[in-house]
Amino acid sequence: MKDSDVEQARARAAQLLQQAHVVITPGERENIEIVELGLGEFETTGLAIVVYVNTDRYCAKELVLLPRQTCPEHRHPPVEDDPGKTETFRVRWGRVYLYVPGEPTAKPKATPPRGSEACYTVFHEVELNPGDQYTIPSDTLHWFQAAGQGAVVSEFSSTSRDASDIFTDPRIKR
Amino acid sequence: MKDSDVEQARARAAQLLQQAHVVITPGERENIEIVELGLGEFETTGLAIVVYVNTDRYCAKELVLLPRQTCPEHRHPPVEDDPGKTETFRVRWGRVYLYVPGEPTAKPKATPPRGSEACYTVFHEVELNPGDQYTIPSDTLHWFQAAGQGAVVSEFSSTSRDASDIFTDPRIKR
Repeated sequence: MKDSDVEQARARAAQLLQQAHVVITPGERENIEIVELGLGEFETTGLAIVVYVNTDRYCAKELVLLPRQTCPEHRHPPVEDDPGKTETFRVRWGRVYLYVPGEPTAKPKATPPRGSEACYTVFHEVELNPGDQYTIPSDTLHWFQAAGQGAVVSEFSSTSRDASDIFTDPRIKR
Repeated sequence: MKDSDVEQARARAAQLLQQAHVVITPGERENIEIVELGLGEFETTGLAIVVYVNTDRYCAKELVLLPRQTCPEHRHPPVEDDPGKTETFRVRWGRVYLYVPGEPTAKPKATPPRGSEACYTVFHEVELNPGDQYTIPSDTLHWFQAAGQGAVVSEFSSTSRDASDIFTDPRIKR
């Protein structure tokens, strides 16, 4: 992404955080992580992240999704002594459709980004509104998409090791 | 505490969460934990807690403090294989004065509850406003008090084992 595109993405994430009444510091605002994943279609596939803390014991972040933006299918595998990241998503604002292994939902409220359908394999839908949360076990495929207003989601988890994440789409680079 | 006092304390905590724009579910609202600590002075010493998740790997909670309410001095010791709970406090709304080991602050903005001064031994002040956070290492004494509006604080941590907490005040029962 061009620097100006990254800056624009940060501004949009900051605006969504403000709408959600989630306060971040000026330093956090400047460093909002824009996760573009190498597909070159950030508005469709990607997300913005504010990492609050990530130690060898626990991690907490705020995830910000634009309207209908998708965090693509991936899992957190075991890494050395770590059995793989377990994470709890708690929606603070907006709405998220989360997909996990299990009976595919008959009329899902979100669909994979056009052209990438082959890289989505789990279709059991969990709808999360503000105050709702869901815990993803380690090494478990999942993907999620915001509804039409976007979403702000708190993620509580064991240690994050993003470089180890395995995406179903072979074109993705984290 | 009488049932009616617990219910009133829950109502006040729910109101502060609402002012902070933190959404909880009806089930969470009904089960807000009112931590009275056995001193019989909840408005002065105690706090309310919403536990979002507490697994063998990580924990996340919302702490709610009434105006000038104090969470009394304590530490989280090692327990078997666990080196002791490490926790990160992030203020979401209101203001907190946190006290940790180190140079005592000359003109502290909070003082220990009257009559319990002997049970407070660390006086290095950290002022936390919305968006500010601070991480307490394991087995480290700390206490905190809300400023005049009360406070809502997100706590991200390793596993919580409340029964193992060691309070400086020998009268306290967790």
